[in-house]
Amino acid sequence: MKVLVLHGPNLNMLGQREPDVYGKQTLDDINAMIVQEGEALGLVVTTLQSNSEGELVSAIQQALGNADAIIINPGAYTHTSVALRDAIAAVGIPTIEVHLSNVYAREEFRHHSHVAPVAVGQIAGFGADSYRLALHAVTRIVGV
Amino acid sequence: MKVLVLHGPNLNMLGQREPDVYGKQTLDDINAMIVQEGEALGLVVTTLQSNSEGELVSAIQQALGNADAIIINPGAYTHTSVALRDAIAAVGIPTIEVHLSNVYAREEFRHHSHVAPVAVGQIAGFGADSYRLALHAVTRIVGV
Amino acid sequence: MKVLVLHGPNLNMLGQREPDVYGKQTLDDINAMIVQEGEALGLVVTTLQSNSEGELVSAIQQALGNADAIIINPGAYTHTSVALRDAIAAVGIPTIEVHLSNVYAREEFRHHSHVAPVAVGQIAGFGADSYRLALHAVTRIVGV
Amino acid sequence: MKVLVLHGPNLNMLGQREPDVYGKQTLDDINAMIVQEGEALGLVVTTLQSNSEGELVSAIQQALGNADAIIINPGAYTHTSVALRDAIAAVGIPTIEVHLSNVYAREEFRHHSHVAPVAVGQIAGFGADSYRLALHAVTRIVGV
Amino acid sequence: MKVLVLHGPNLNMLGQREPDVYGKQTLDDINAMIVQEGEALGLVVTTLQSNSEGELVSAIQQALGNADAIIINPGAYTHTSVALRDAIAAVGIPTIEVHLSNVYAREEFRHHSHVAPVAVGQIAGFGADSYRLALHAVTRIVGV
Amino acid sequence: MKVLVLHGPNLNMLGQREPDVYGKQTLDDINAMIVQEGEALGLVVTTLQSNSEGELVSAIQQALGNADAIIINPGAYTHTSVALRDAIAAVGIPTIEVHLSNVYAREEFRHHSHVAPVAVGQIAGFGADSYRLALHAVTRIVGV
Amino acid sequence: MKVLVLHGPNLNMLGQREPDVYGKQTLDDINAMIVQEGEALGLVVTTLQSNSEGELVSAIQQALGNADAIIINPGAYTHTSVALRDAIAAVGIPTIEVHLSNVYAREEFRHHSHVAPVAVGQIAGFGADSYRLALHAVTRIVGV
Amino acid sequence: MKVLVLHGPNLNMLGQREPDVYGKQTLDDINAMIVQEGEALGLVVTTLQSNSEGELVSAIQQALGNADAIIINPGAYTHTSVALRDAIAAVGIPTIEVHLSNVYAREEFRHHSHVAPVAVGQIAGFGADSYRLALHAVTRIVGV
Amino acid sequence: MKVLVLHGPNLNMLGQREPDVYGKQTLDDINAMIVQEGEALGLVVTTLQSNSEGELVSAIQQALGNADAIIINPGAYTHTSVALRDAIAAVGIPTIEVHLSNVYAREEFRHHSHVAPVAVGQIAGFGADSYRLALHAVTRIVGV
Amino acid sequence: MKVLVLHGPNLNMLGQREPDVYGKQTLDDINAMIVQEGEALGLVVTTLQSNSEGELVSAIQQALGNADAIIINPGAYTHTSVALRDAIAAVGIPTIEVHLSNVYAREEFRHHSHVAPVAVGQIAGFGADSYRLALHAVTRIVGV
Amino acid sequence: MKVLVLHGPNLNMLGQREPDVYGKQTLDDINAMIVQEGEALGLVVTTLQSNSEGELVSAIQQALGNADAIIINPGAYTHTSVALRDAIAAVGIPTIEVHLSNVYAREEFRHHSHVAPVAVGQIAGFGADSYRLALHAVTRIVGV
Amino acid sequence: MKVLVLHGPNLNMLGQREPDVYGKQTLDDINAMIVQEGEALGLVVTTLQSNSEGELVSAIQQALGNADAIIINPGAYTHTSVALRDAIAAVGIPTIEVHLSNVYAREEFRHHSHVAPVAVGQIAGFGADSYRLALHAVTRIVGV
Repeated sequence: MKVLVLHGPNLNMLGQREPDVYGKQTLDDINAMIVQEGEALGLVVTTLQSNSEGELVSAIQQALGNADAIIINPGAYTHTSVALRDAIAAVGIPTIEVHLSNVYAREEFRHHSHVAPVAVGQIAGFGADSYRLALHAVTRIVGV
Repeated sequence: MKVLVLHGPNLNMLGQREPDVYGKQTLDDINAMIVQEGEALGLVVTTLQSNSEGELVSAIQQALGNADAIIINPGAYTHTSVALRDAIAAVGIPTIEVHLSNVYAREEFRHHSHVAPVAVGQIAGFGADSYRLALHAVTRIVGV
Repeated sequence: MKVLVLHGPNLNMLGQREPDVYGKQTLDDINAMIVQEGEALGLVVTTLQSNSEGELVSAIQQALGNADAIIINPGAYTHTSVALRDAIAAVGIPTIEVHLSNVYAREEFRHHSHVAPVAVGQIAGFGADSYRLALHAVTRIVGV
Repeated sequence: MKVLVLHGPNLNMLGQREPDVYGKQTLDDINAMIVQEGEALGLVVTTLQSNSEGELVSAIQQALGNADAIIINPGAYTHTSVALRDAIAAVGIPTIEVHLSNVYAREEFRHHSHVAPVAVGQIAGFGADSYRLALHAVTRIVGV
Repeated sequence: MKVLVLHGPNLNMLGQREPDVYGKQTLDDINAMIVQEGEALGLVVTTLQSNSEGELVSAIQQALGNADAIIINPGAYTHTSVALRDAIAAVGIPTIEVHLSNVYAREEFRHHSHVAPVAVGQIAGFGADSYRLALHAVTRIVGV
Repeated sequence: MKVLVLHGPNLNMLGQREPDVYGKQTLDDINAMIVQEGEALGLVVTTLQSNSEGELVSAIQQALGNADAIIINPGAYTHTSVALRDAIAAVGIPTIEVHLSNVYAREEFRHHSHVAPVAVGQIAGFGADSYRLALHAVTRIVGV
Repeated sequence: MKVLVLHGPNLNMLGQREPDVYGKQTLDDINAMIVQEGEALGLVVTTLQSNSEGELVSAIQQALGNADAIIINPGAYTHTSVALRDAIAAVGIPTIEVHLSNVYAREEFRHHSHVAPVAVGQIAGFGADSYRLALHAVTRIVGV
Repeated sequence: MKVLVLHGPNLNMLGQREPDVYGKQTLDDINAMIVQEGEALGLVVTTLQSNSEGELVSAIQQALGNADAIIINPGAYTHTSVALRDAIAAVGIPTIEVHLSNVYAREEFRHHSHVAPVAVGQIAGFGADSYRLALHAVTRIVGV
Repeated sequence: MKVLVLHGPNLNMLGQREPDVYGKQTLDDINAMIVQEGEALGLVVTTLQSNSEGELVSAIQQALGNADAIIINPGAYTHTSVALRDAIAAVGIPTIEVHLSNVYAREEFRHHSHVAPVAVGQIAGFGADSYRLALHAVTRIVGV
Repeated sequence: MKVLVLHGPNLNMLGQREPDVYGKQTLDDINAMIVQEGEALGLVVTTLQSNSEGELVSAIQQALGNADAIIINPGAYTHTSVALRDAIAAVGIPTIEVHLSNVYAREEFRHHSHVAPVAVGQIAGFGADSYRLALHAVTRIVGV
Repeated sequence: MKVLVLHGPNLNMLGQREPDVYGKQTLDDINAMIVQEGEALGLVVTTLQSNSEGELVSAIQQALGNADAIIINPGAYTHTSVALRDAIAAVGIPTIEVHLSNVYAREEFRHHSHVAPVAVGQIAGFGADSYRLALHAVTRIVGV
Repeated sequence: MKVLVLHGPNLNMLGQREPDVYGKQTLDDINAMIVQEGEALGLVVTTLQSNSEGELVSAIQQALGNADAIIINPGAYTHTSVALRDAIAAVGIPTIEVHLSNVYAREEFRHHSHVAPVAVGQIAGFGADSYRLALHAVTRIVGV
């Protein structure tokens, strides 16, 4: 059972960036946790971060045939990218949208997600645990 | 570690109601699963369903001193109740908003939540597993 | 053939309340007319009025298996209650929305109905005759 | 007691047009039913269909002195014609707005009616029975 | 110097229609006044009323080469007709928009005019005198 | 001279709830002050708190013949309840809308009141003194 | 018969200001024309220009008892001043709103007038002739 | 293979009307080109122009059984006519929407088309060639 | 304890202006009442009326060091003046917003107040008693 | 005569992606058809697909001096990219916007195009034939 | 080379007013800096502050022939004054809009400027240095 | 003191692109001027242009520890990129937003900036001098 975990723009800054909003863990810390948690759940997890909308679109496309589920934290592209939405719909791989912070407690423009309508579900507000919960959800959706 | 699980209006119709949207499990089935999963996680779970906005508000108020966390699926009141929002803010108990369906894939009016801004986080779209994931989240938030 | 007629908030004030808008008949007068008209049409009619959104939701739920059609004047909840909408969709009983006054000739906020999209149809503006016409409509919809 | 029944644009296509939305009856079938039902109720009914906004306006104007009530299904002009509204207000003849389908369960732009605020009331969603109910309503409004 | 005076839908009902808004004069009275006032100003005035948007569009087109100015009271089409706007722009004849009533003191939807941006100017609120003033304006615009 | 003072949802949490916004006084403290102040002004005051929209509607209805004025702090229902508005309009008892906090200095959704248009007036932002001022206002309105 | 003609902000720049929009006449030229035209019509005309909203409000107030009609070109205050609207409503003197340019052919924000709903009527787009036509209108409204 | 080409209001003014926007060709020129191009493609083309919304609706209705495809340039009715939309949906004949100018480079109100959602496709901005391209498209859609 | 009472535009017309909305008292009557009531409460009250936004801004500025509280009825400037808002925020003197009429029962544009968010509170709808209640409120806020 | 054909994000998924919306042809199939059709029309066609907004912008810039016309299907960037719009305006090369599907029959957010106002025209809804028609259009625009 | 520097309402409160937003410098301090910096750049600078919209309009008008450039910080009138915009357009003197604070980081209503579209440019967010930068900009625009 | 100057999409087209809006200087010309002006002010300036949103985000991230200030002209991404905003907030380096043209005098969609709220300030409308002024501003903000 293979899972692709995608991190959107600026998530490589975790630990350096607005720690009161996003916590002190670096993305490497989180990726290590994700891979380890995946293993415990019988999932082979690959992670990728990109600041480029186009690269994230391509990564989703390349998951076709290579991943049974996608977990994506689209970061700022959540609110501005129809291309990500279309890529997820195109590949037809079950996808879970994840956010570290509670986007609904932040600026108005962060309340709308282009991705949410084509995702299976959304998990937001639990810090790095949002990814952990998404891995648990994956095991139920794709039937590990 | 005590957790109050609240189900809003019409959730008592689960199993009878639009099964293509909500699945075939009854609320009793789900509550049994929730209690059992809670026990496995070391949580004492109480569940309550009500069709009345006022009763749900009162239940949240009475959780003060009696629960360490709240998991709430506000159902239709998600979109119309400021009173629920105010109750959650008033008691200051960490609260997780849960939805069975992916509300963002449904009618426009279901995309707005009055509760989300005062919740810790939101989990939507995983059927009864949304509650299960929320229980896992609780163990991390309140530090079981 | 059983019909449940539901009256929403403040309809118990009929006769006392803004008679230029709603007429002089009391709700008891109207209920008597409704029951009598129903009998003439071969319908067994039960009536219920409540000021509580939750009670109206519960009444709709309890109609499952107990009524072949619902006639509802949701009053003020027409404009604010998603819970009523969801209850009607949940039970799947043919439902007719009724209003005494022509809501489209009144304040802008009375022009939107949460209930209308899940109802079979809408009859508005004929005073107590709106109910009478709805009973006639019922006989055609459920095939008396 | 004379009643003018007006059918707006495309209603002459009934039976040929989107039968899942509008049913299989032709307009001639419906007009025959309307006239017969009117006779049973002591009403002399004239019917007219037009695809032209201006002809419908003129028909309403010519009803002045020639009809005691108007039943109008304005079709698409419901949503776009201020001229129909003004004609109805100008002649001051009690008018009932009728729709075959439940317009509130269709596209957003069909939820607004220019005609509704100047009509006595509105009946929508009962197929050809919407006209039948309107005839019953007429007998109460103009006091047959 | 030839002037075409166009009256839109329902203006043929003047005198019969909502006299508190539009006064007691019939359209024939007003047309007689217009022709007479035109003569006094050295203008040859032709008048036309139609309930049909298409006929009004055609009348404007036929004015090309036959009229030096147009005075139009588009009635309800003021608010709904792009076709009238386009016709006026197409013929390039100086056009004055006229209203009997003060449209800005009436319903919100009467505050927008599709015609105004392509007219020379607008005169509203002076009853039949709106036409009279427009005739005076014509003499200045086209230089009698 | 009898006055009904109604407190809406979550006002029973006063003293426990967001003290920086609402102060430290409990609702019992405030009710005691209200009754005492009322006595000093020659008013017989009854107080009632409810979390239920329906109960508040019923309380207003029951005031008919039992109270000369109503002072209501509708809390969250200020922004969501048309039913409260209709109840106040139905009984026709002079009603004053009261808020502890300055609702206009808070979230956008708290700036709109369904109740305000049918109230005599509004007093907001003076903490428990908002009620005290409303009692003074009552003495002038109903002429103690 | 006394008429007060008020010119709003920047109208004292006429002749110097955007001549393609407003023409080459100075305000003195226009005032001379207005006074002369008034005399010809039997009207005693006083003119006043101010860049100050407050002064224009005061001028309207002082017209009470001193003028039988007001002609006002509120300039930029047309779109931003509720105070002018209230002043006109307060004095109850018949008032005509005038604009040199066709405001509906200009920027969107110039399409709304705070003054129009309380004026008798509006004349726009005829350059200085807008005032001339307004004087003619005055003679009809106040019955010279 | 029969094709009906419909031209909406004011298109009969082509050549006379705003040549910088619409070019110098008359509608007769364009119709001749359309018929000739159709012949070359094996299509029997009929053309019709009308300024009347109702006539255009009727023409679409009469195409039922008489045309295999419709090409329509609805002109101003593009933006205001729900009746045209309903007629196209009613007859179920493949329809192509055509515009001479690039409507998206013009006024905001020209950006919305009532017709587009029920058409097969839309071709805009190529002058008379828009029709020519539509004829080519027809040959592919209906399989000449 | 010194209090500045400011009256905005057109309030000098009280008694002459729309008496059904504002009552028959003149501003002098009200000022006399205010000063007298102030004295009874141990407050030294100064009053000022101006039609000029700038003068009201300056008056607020000059209150710095000269007044312990401000009571302001901004009249029409309530809805249009950011400058008044900024002045109140700049001086930091506790300010109460007052309205004679219930602004929420009037035109939509009167429902928004630029001043309210920076005021302590708002009192509206009690006629001249709104000022009286504000004086009482002052004694509590600034601690006489 | 050289033409650059640009395909936006996810168009490389054609054939794999939502075939009911986009058909079964792969992008290679379509490109082969485009090149061949171009040759038949005397056009030298180059094609490029990219998921990256920046690459598409750069491709447009590099067309300056290298292409006589651009045909672009901006895919999801149609709705979100001002950068593409600016690039097209910057190079000043005649550009045709193309869509496979009828975007106006899909989600609301697909109805707006940032590119359309700076394109020559738009062709949408004809599947791969949209490109073919665009090539024909090119021959007319740039005068092969 | 003469420059007029205009300060809008409440800027005379600088130093006293919200120092966390606007800094501790008084307007006299800033004016001294402006004059000195102007001298260094070869500019003769005049400064004026007013709380009155009308006075600011008049000051701009009087700059005609007396100033080669205007630097204006319109304060609160930025967001509410069309009259200032019209005055700047009328005199045709190159004008730079200046703000002390970053208005885009403050309340939503401060994001819109009526003045910006008719100014040469805008400098915001640099405290008193915004004026200094504007003086430098002036030397480039008017070519010292 | 190190400054990073970032140019967004299409700015590499300067000199070739819409010279009436952006002038004739190439980006190389401007960069040379920027570096030279920086040297004169004691600033070490690095410049970078990219058409890629992701590359601009990465460049901002890499400035952490390598630049004391950022000057950014985000071009089209000003209006569409939340990712740029988040990057600027993440690195916490003082950033100045710059535009060549007066964006407020152009299309409505160019009036909103995602970047402005997290920048220190904004300078727009002075052509290449906007960068020069920004360099001056930098010396004050970071205290050269």
